[in-house]
Amino acid sequence: MAEQDPPKAEKVVPVPEGEGEKGPSKSALKKAQKEKEKAEKAAKRAAAEEAARKEREAAEANDISKDDYGELPSDGELPKVVVDVPFVKLDELEVTFGTEGEKLSNGGPGGAEEGGGPHVLFTAVVKNARSQSAKLAFLVFQHGFSTIQAVIAVSDTLSRQMVKFAGGIPSQSVVVVHALIKKPKEPVKSCTIQNLEAHIKKIYVESPADSQLPLQVEDAEQPIPADGEEVQEEGGRPIVTLNTRLNNRVIDLRARHNFAIGRIKYGVTKLFAEFLDAKGFTGIQTPKLLGSASEGGANVFEVTYFATKAFLAQSPQLYKQMLIAARFQKVFEVGPVFRAENSNTARHLTEFTGLDLEMEFNGHYHEVVSLLEELMLFIFNGLKGRYKRETDLVRAVYNVPEFRLPEAGKVPRLPFSEGIKMLRDAGVEVNDYDDLSTPDEKKLGALVLEKFGTDFYVLDKFPLAVRPFYTMPDMSTYGKDPNDANAGYSNSYDFFMRGQEIMSGAQRIHKAEFLRKRMREHVTPVDPESEGLRDYVKAFSYGCNKHAGGGLGLERIVMLWLGLPNVRLASLFPRDPQRLSP
Amino acid sequence: MAEQDPPKAEKVVPVPEGEGEKGPSKSALKKAQKEKEKAEKAAKRAAAEEAARKEREAAEANDISKDDYGELPSDGELPKVVVDVPFVKLDELEVTFGTEGEKLSNGGPGGAEEGGGPHVLFTAVVKNARSQSAKLAFLVFQHGFSTIQAVIAVSDTLSRQMVKFAGGIPSQSVVVVHALIKKPKEPVKSCTIQNLEAHIKKIYVESPADSQLPLQVEDAEQPIPADGEEVQEEGGRPIVTLNTRLNNRVIDLRARHNFAIGRIKYGVTKLFAEFLDAKGFTGIQTPKLLGSASEGGANVFEVTYFATKAFLAQSPQLYKQMLIAARFQKVFEVGPVFRAENSNTARHLTEFTGLDLEMEFNGHYHEVVSLLEELMLFIFNGLKGRYKRETDLVRAVYNVPEFRLPEAGKVPRLPFSEGIKMLRDAGVEVNDYDDLSTPDEKKLGALVLEKFGTDFYVLDKFPLAVRPFYTMPDMSTYGKDPNDANAGYSNSYDFFMRGQEIMSGAQRIHKAEFLRKRMREHVTPVDPESEGLRDYVKAFSYGCNKHAGGGLGLERIVMLWLGLPNVRLASLFPRDPQRLSP
Repeated sequence: MAEQDPPKAEKVVPVPEGEGEKGPSKSALKKAQKEKEKAEKAAKRAAAEEAARKEREAAEANDISKDDYGELPSDGELPKVVVDVPFVKLDELEVTFGTEGEKLSNGGPGGAEEGGGPHVLFTAVVKNARSQSAKLAFLVFQHGFSTIQAVIAVSDTLSRQMVKFAGGIPSQSVVVVHALIKKPKEPVKSCTIQNLEAHIKKIYVESPADSQLPLQVEDAEQPIPADGEEVQEEGGRPIVTLNTRLNNRVIDLRARHNFAIGRIKYGVTKLFAEFLDAKGFTGIQTPKLLGSASEGGANVFEVTYFATKAFLAQSPQLYKQMLIAARFQKVFEVGPVFRAENSNTARHLTEFTGLDLEMEFNGHYHEVVSLLEELMLFIFNGLKGRYKRETDLVRAVYNVPEFRLPEAGKVPRLPFSEGIKMLRDAGVEVNDYDDLSTPDEKKLGALVLEKFGTDFYVLDKFPLAVRPFYTMPDMSTYGKDPNDANAGYSNSYDFFMRGQEIMSGAQRIHKAEFLRKRMREHVTPVDPESEGLRDYVKAFSYGCNKHAGGGLGLERIVMLWLGLPNVRLASLFPRDPQRLSP
Repeated sequence: MAEQDPPKAEKVVPVPEGEGEKGPSKSALKKAQKEKEKAEKAAKRAAAEEAARKEREAAEANDISKDDYGELPSDGELPKVVVDVPFVKLDELEVTFGTEGEKLSNGGPGGAEEGGGPHVLFTAVVKNARSQSAKLAFLVFQHGFSTIQAVIAVSDTLSRQMVKFAGGIPSQSVVVVHALIKKPKEPVKSCTIQNLEAHIKKIYVESPADSQLPLQVEDAEQPIPADGEEVQEEGGRPIVTLNTRLNNRVIDLRARHNFAIGRIKYGVTKLFAEFLDAKGFTGIQTPKLLGSASEGGANVFEVTYFATKAFLAQSPQLYKQMLIAARFQKVFEVGPVFRAENSNTARHLTEFTGLDLEMEFNGHYHEVVSLLEELMLFIFNGLKGRYKRETDLVRAVYNVPEFRLPEAGKVPRLPFSEGIKMLRDAGVEVNDYDDLSTPDEKKLGALVLEKFGTDFYVLDKFPLAVRPFYTMPDMSTYGKDPNDANAGYSNSYDFFMRGQEIMSGAQRIHKAEFLRKRMREHVTPVDPESEGLRDYVKAFSYGCNKHAGGGLGLERIVMLWLGLPNVRLASLFPRDPQRLSP
């Protein structure tokens, strides 16, 4: 029982007080005349509406198809006439009936019709609907990556009204369809299912779409404009800005390549966990609410926490190390990390997904580097093998060179000093112990690609001075300069894809005394007794294994694997300094 | 080159000014005498120290074992003498040599010794070390769940100094051990490895533990005291409060049952993802930073976000539904959820891990309830099968009745009204349409256990008035009461373990118009046009499938599966209104 608006009270024209005795004025007469005309018009309109309603009712009474179409009730309950036909998925139609329709004669889950061809029931999105004539309409249905053409035609058992209804369903509406599957005369080149066609017998709207959408899915299926802000025209279609797409992200994500990006992103997390699980790692959840800004206070978000303050974790770094001290041996985490960095670039987000891991090792930290290389190759090869369809879909939109993997799985692992030498040989001016700038990183990536033929490589042994306090120095260079405790190199490494950093990692300091010393003598000294670090430092005074690890940025891996022009495309609902919604 | 403290300047006794001409006073003479005695004492001490040092050096020079023990350098690099022996894991010793030591003669990875028995190298924690005599010491090593006894004895090739060193290593220190594995004369009942014994040949401290720890691992291995705050005594050991344990969580987590809880918790997330992956779900990450407090503002944490404010997500509810509207079909998320609830109970956390899922369905929402029941049974059976050792370890500490699963996998699914009837029949006073109180829930859990023999069951069809605005009403009862739009029931359900709720879920409203209506007429009305809800409501006006889902609390599942007395035990680093560290 749907609620209705309360009946509107008839409009009474109030007589202005104190005017009665004087008789009606000229303007009052004019007003009365107008009201009269209005009332007559309204009466005419009501009569016309009543006539139309009666006609509609009569038509409905005569409509032989009246139970076979219409809008479903609010809870989407199906009418009794279809409730016993089992559902199929569009994605499975070609499995059931053959990509050439060669298994059509076998009959479908809903049984075969007299005239041949099986019945099916499915839920789908109306990609588009058009009336060819009063007797014939064509629709394209979509579900997941599959599209199929459908036809509806007037017949002895199918009314004009129903054909009109079907042809007028707004694009993007969700419908439940009861259809007969047949082989079309010609392959339908515009659909993914080319040799099957749905002949509509019943069609119900489960959820109608507004007829005017703020973004067209077809526009979302184009690449974003290269220079960010401008709306260009190309072949008649507008190129919609990234901003407009993100403002309407629910429609934007309906573009098939965007769902493919979502699937690939999930694939990375799945492959990451699968590999580490097989190696005996334990998945963990570390707290995101911290009592103090432990890892340097600059880029941290502050939270009101009851009567006090909390801070959002910039990484699980300190906690995953504490879990090594707690004898968890090998841990990994997939979780959000928060960076209050006011960077409005194509590769920064204020919230992204960290893939973190930390493990004890027995001999040399290169054991861990080798495992990390193996992990990345496992992910890359998994993407190539299991997510080929999704990758192809994205490449059809963003046509970037395929990601090149090292031959025979041998990942180039260059000492930082060798990277510097390569840059210098190429004419780039760089200092021995400075961190690389983003352009230098990209340049080095290009040089490595040229020399080793791979978009993936590792830079090892970074200068100690450019790494965090918990980084293990390279003891063969540590302390050699009496004037600079931060001179020399460290047991740390970055992983690169297409010349951009995707992972930073290192062997960590595992003895409390040495850790305290390094905290004090670091380029940016920190106090080992400060509230946010005290528990962390203490953890190592309880005896802790040698350990190393790293942190990967999920969205960056996805962006660089596919060659996307903006990291926001690899986030479902991206967050940056300007964007907190949807 | 380790830094040293600067040499201390010799203490010079200052002569008080202006006293020189008068000659020394009595008190000045006394003072001078004292200083003289002090200086003599200091000289004696220095001489004794010097003698001891020389003796030590001489002993070291004579120490035949001097390369075979000691503390490793800061980066943990191993001495050359062991670098070529391959490492083994304590956990694997019984696999390599047999639980009865029957494969000892086969030789180990380090080769067999002349006298028989294989060499191994391993990293381990010193559980305890004690000198039996000047010539003999016993140690117990631990790694993961395994412990083994070790012995070190003076011989032609092993010095007294080394035995003394080994017997004095503080408990919880991490060591690298080169040992010969033999069969002990008697099985070592106090260790998990009973029929193997390590005869130490070399031992190096990788990371020493402080000799005084703020919490003993052995104390952490006892159950927490029943009434929370009091420290009791039982059989001589203190029962350490939960608070002290959480303050020293790194040591607390070293208790084997705590690592077991961590493994079981990981097991739940793994089984959850495994099941849903096989059903075609896509894993997602939804934003935790929101532009407005969308799901009711009371229990939400506020974040300073550059020049504006943000809020921490209380659940992925609105976003997972928007992804259904974005055609993602079936989604799940494992991620943190934040609740600014000032509840200081044994079952509330301010940050916990949500296991969320949402899916479209074709027919009736009970399809989804069935899938959720199947999911939970998959998790429970997976825990029983794959995490038996871990579960047994926890049960050895918290001895609670085993979790009872429904027979033949048939989960009781009771309509809410039937639950009310069962409570009334048991003499509990309850109203038809009120939500159940926590004691009533527990009572109903006990009644269900009695009647159906299971600790797991589902309550279905909750009163509409007690569920959130996005819940689909049961249309057979909706709108029947012209005075109360929230009368009747809804297509919603809760899942229970041991009488406590672990999941809340429902069919959601999938049409924008009906959603707006429900938002306005809800018991706690919300504005569909408000900033935090506008995008959410709009998503359904673009056409959206019927869908349903639910949200599980990971820590609660772990707590109730194991029967733990406090949910904090199921969180690595729990957060509550009073606790933000470690």
